[in-house]
Amino acid sequence: MKESAREKIIAVGVEIVAVSGFNATGIDAILKAAGVPKGSFYHHFGTKENFGIEVINLFAENYTKKLHGYLDDEALAPLQRIRRYLEESIERTVQDNFSKGCLIGNLGQELAAQSERFRCRLEEVFHDWLGLFAKCLHEAQTAGELNPGLDAQSLAGFLLSGWEGAILRAKVMRSPEPLKQFVNVLFTRVLTAG
Amino acid sequence: MKESAREKIIAVGVEIVAVSGFNATGIDAILKAAGVPKGSFYHHFGTKENFGIEVINLFAENYTKKLHGYLDDEALAPLQRIRRYLEESIERTVQDNFSKGCLIGNLGQELAAQSERFRCRLEEVFHDWLGLFAKCLHEAQTAGELNPGLDAQSLAGFLLSGWEGAILRAKVMRSPEPLKQFVNVLFTRVLTAG
Repeated sequence: MKESAREKIIAVGVEIVAVSGFNATGIDAILKAAGVPKGSFYHHFGTKENFGIEVINLFAENYTKKLHGYLDDEALAPLQRIRRYLEESIERTVQDNFSKGCLIGNLGQELAAQSERFRCRLEEVFHDWLGLFAKCLHEAQTAGELNPGLDAQSLAGFLLSGWEGAILRAKVMRSPEPLKQFVNVLFTRVLTAG
Repeated sequence: MKESAREKIIAVGVEIVAVSGFNATGIDAILKAAGVPKGSFYHHFGTKENFGIEVINLFAENYTKKLHGYLDDEALAPLQRIRRYLEESIERTVQDNFSKGCLIGNLGQELAAQSERFRCRLEEVFHDWLGLFAKCLHEAQTAGELNPGLDAQSLAGFLLSGWEGAILRAKVMRSPEPLKQFVNVLFTRVLTAG
């Protein structure tokens, strides 16, 4: 399927904004990387903020699809699905040389206090992800893998916080150590049957 | 003690950069808020990056002092010191209306991939904090509050990651919920004697 110029700009935006953040990303650099003539940006988006929302939407759509792929995989026990997602994410982070972090986490730090429109959209994305993890944790309880007395929603929030923070620390340290540490403590202390 | 113009600029910088980030903070806005004549910025700092490093240094110095105040407080049992720090931080975050997050976490997200000089300085600050938490967790083990078979350094990393991530999510949600959730799971599942 041929991408339209608008789609190209958004796809390139996801890559550049993931590394450089939103404010530091210049519109000219995006148009150049997308191979799209200058002048078309405001035609397609009106404002840089509208473009930013489309970048979030595309990233969230793709990432949520990926999370579904992991967390709905009935070939694995529920906790193994979460572990596989986390471990493969560590590999990808190392391959990317810790340059990206999590686009939603990055923009949350950068924009939540600056723009209520960004903040609300980012909150929705986190909320969607939280629901996917909570569902999988609930299935782990049903399967007898996870203490049924725990609140799956609350554990999902804990997991999402810890993971976002570990991604941040890995980026700052340029090391997978915080991510490995997080997975290890999570599965030995938090997500256990006892 | 009278602040010099340079000190005023750095102190104002800590406040503004905590809310707006580094790239989005204009030098003119800082000088105006500090009540310092234009033109003096480059005299004092040479580059905006040098100024950014001084902002990190001042914030880190003050915050590390604050952490020492909590974590070295021998009037409380070691785990109670950590709990008090976390709970009072939640109160401050609510008072600030979730506008700041953690300056070091914010700048880590924003700058770690952009500037090796910033990344290294931020890594040092996290490393210092990690050491303070690890020492307190080790004391908790000696006091019989925390399972002595656990690795205090690794738990400290887990705590720091989880807390940074919870601060991020609280900022995005404008709610203390992720912070409360984190503290609750941390003390019921992770930092226990068993």
